[in-house]
Amino acid sequence: MISPDTQPSEAKHPVAIETVTVALRDRSYPIVIGPELLGSLGGRLAAMQLDLKVAVVTNPIVRQLYGAPVLESLTAAGFQPTVIEIPAGEEHKNFAWLTFLYDRLLDARLERNSTVVALGGGVIGDLAGFAAATFLRGVPFVQVPTTLLAQVDSSVGGKTGVNHPQGKNLIGAFYQPRLVLADVGTLRSLPRREFLAGLAEVIKYGVILSPDLFDLLEAELPRVLDLDAAVLTEVVRVCCALKAMVVGEDERETGLRSILNFGHTMGHAVESLTEYKRFLHGEAVAIGMAFAAHLSNVRGHCSEESVTRIVQLLKRAGLPVEIPQELLGRHLALAIEADKKVSGGKIKFVCISEIGRTVFDHLAANEIAQVAGR
Amino acid sequence: MISPDTQPSEAKHPVAIETVTVALRDRSYPIVIGPELLGSLGGRLAAMQLDLKVAVVTNPIVRQLYGAPVLESLTAAGFQPTVIEIPAGEEHKNFAWLTFLYDRLLDARLERNSTVVALGGGVIGDLAGFAAATFLRGVPFVQVPTTLLAQVDSSVGGKTGVNHPQGKNLIGAFYQPRLVLADVGTLRSLPRREFLAGLAEVIKYGVILSPDLFDLLEAELPRVLDLDAAVLTEVVRVCCALKAMVVGEDERETGLRSILNFGHTMGHAVESLTEYKRFLHGEAVAIGMAFAAHLSNVRGHCSEESVTRIVQLLKRAGLPVEIPQELLGRHLALAIEADKKVSGGKIKFVCISEIGRTVFDHLAANEIAQVAGR
Repeated sequence: MISPDTQPSEAKHPVAIETVTVALRDRSYPIVIGPELLGSLGGRLAAMQLDLKVAVVTNPIVRQLYGAPVLESLTAAGFQPTVIEIPAGEEHKNFAWLTFLYDRLLDARLERNSTVVALGGGVIGDLAGFAAATFLRGVPFVQVPTTLLAQVDSSVGGKTGVNHPQGKNLIGAFYQPRLVLADVGTLRSLPRREFLAGLAEVIKYGVILSPDLFDLLEAELPRVLDLDAAVLTEVVRVCCALKAMVVGEDERETGLRSILNFGHTMGHAVESLTEYKRFLHGEAVAIGMAFAAHLSNVRGHCSEESVTRIVQLLKRAGLPVEIPQELLGRHLALAIEADKKVSGGKIKFVCISEIGRTVFDHLAANEIAQVAGR
Repeated sequence: MISPDTQPSEAKHPVAIETVTVALRDRSYPIVIGPELLGSLGGRLAAMQLDLKVAVVTNPIVRQLYGAPVLESLTAAGFQPTVIEIPAGEEHKNFAWLTFLYDRLLDARLERNSTVVALGGGVIGDLAGFAAATFLRGVPFVQVPTTLLAQVDSSVGGKTGVNHPQGKNLIGAFYQPRLVLADVGTLRSLPRREFLAGLAEVIKYGVILSPDLFDLLEAELPRVLDLDAAVLTEVVRVCCALKAMVVGEDERETGLRSILNFGHTMGHAVESLTEYKRFLHGEAVAIGMAFAAHLSNVRGHCSEESVTRIVQLLKRAGLPVEIPQELLGRHLALAIEADKKVSGGKIKFVCISEIGRTVFDHLAANEIAQVAGR
């Protein structure tokens, strides 16, 4: 019998566990969101009729933090887990480490119904997801994202892949996980700067799809920044539900899904001109979103007030909003062109007409750069 | 105006073009079968709303034979084709050549709606198909199979992949083509031995799924061996329709699709014990089918008469039906075990109860080897 004092108390666990279902017919899957979920992984997998062999792909930092509870949970549920470590960092999301991963999956004798678990951020998710998509023509894949960006972004949409010397994510597959377990408690160990960069993508969902989320963020930002479990669970839930809605309409990114690139045209240009060293992706996107809001106003799509609210929220979240002065000019136009692989033609630029509503505009790269230079 | 004598005459083109639709919801696609189809590739692609860039992946032998009509057809339809050559042979279905292929696709500046065309046999189809599945997370893929085996087998089912030093097809994806163009005229240039090996898989479809196909092959074998376009078109059509039916029920090979492995348990063991040097895959499958028929009779599933008809048809097609004497014994059991990755457990063996109808039996590897040794 469990004595009352070992039971989770209301005071300690006031946060309900939420589930968002990504509806993709026979590829549908649940995203489970809440605090202290890592220990439930084994039990949840046990309900899915999988082989006992499980490969947990992670990096040394995440393993140190969360390896033990994950492995204990899997072992307690009867699984035979193997841990495969990939060094931390985007520079390891490449063919050499993919090949290493295949070799380890073979060593562990994984079979067609064995599971690959990605425990970590976007790099681990992309790499392990692509290995799962292509090992034995596809084995079950489970994501346990431990960064805010991975929880709200990478965990919905099925994008997996590796970088190529000629560009990011050039090789990959759309491959849906069977389950995503987003434990918001893991965000407590995330470096502050990475957390805030993830918050940029959270704000993006509000700006392009949901005035309610934007209002919530404006009102509750202090609790978000304080990593309050209840607010984080709600925020991650809403972001996943919004992205799931978009992806459900457009699984393979042929149309609607492109609104998710709001802020990314300028964001990518800024990242590229600073050689991916000065800004985290989310920081560059924050700059790109402030710019996209400004451009939307200049082009007559949205009010000055919307721009101000967006810029203020980004600033309050500690995110950069200005394109560095030295990047303005001709190089900026070229960087925009290079990213979009257009030359001379018009770029389909994601604007907003108000907070929560997008509209497309069509501009040449130099027209975009001119708005930035004003 | 086209003058009458330039029009295809009834005497020259008595063969109707057939289309089999592989029904996989949003991944459905047509297989077009008939003689002299290569010249229609450009026109058919033009109807599909694709980018103008097309990469034709082939080998030097096939390019020499069919490169010109394919490129002319694409160019005439307004496409900008690039040819990418992979050396002929299964030993090139590996990571090194996959990487080469990615690099060439990038050089050719293919984009997300550009097409990869596989012009060749199974090796080209598997390699180009996997590249198409994973380049930019998947680009449109078209197969133009030029071997009998590729026309009846690889063109249906969406299996793509490369070999790994530890085994065949260990890395790959299920990825459906947008179109398959099976020009039976290309079979005229196929080495005789390869054609006959492909015929083994054709006979397999009759044995496991269709008494009508089996009867047709018994009656029309001379015309098949004579490469009669009308009979070949009918035979390829029936095989594709049968495989499409099986794959439509079981796209990711979780159940029904395993009947397609009829003859393959022993076939793989024979291939492995002779180090893939003595027999072509189809020849080994012919030996495996004769054995599977025999085992079905020994285990009381089918009549002696069915066995005789199967063995006779294989022999008339010039295919081997006997397991080489020196392979019998303990090594055979070990090779069967290794292939099925079972140790001690029972193997799910595909038997027949009559021609056109399968039944599963469960035997240990040494029980199977014992039947072979009798």
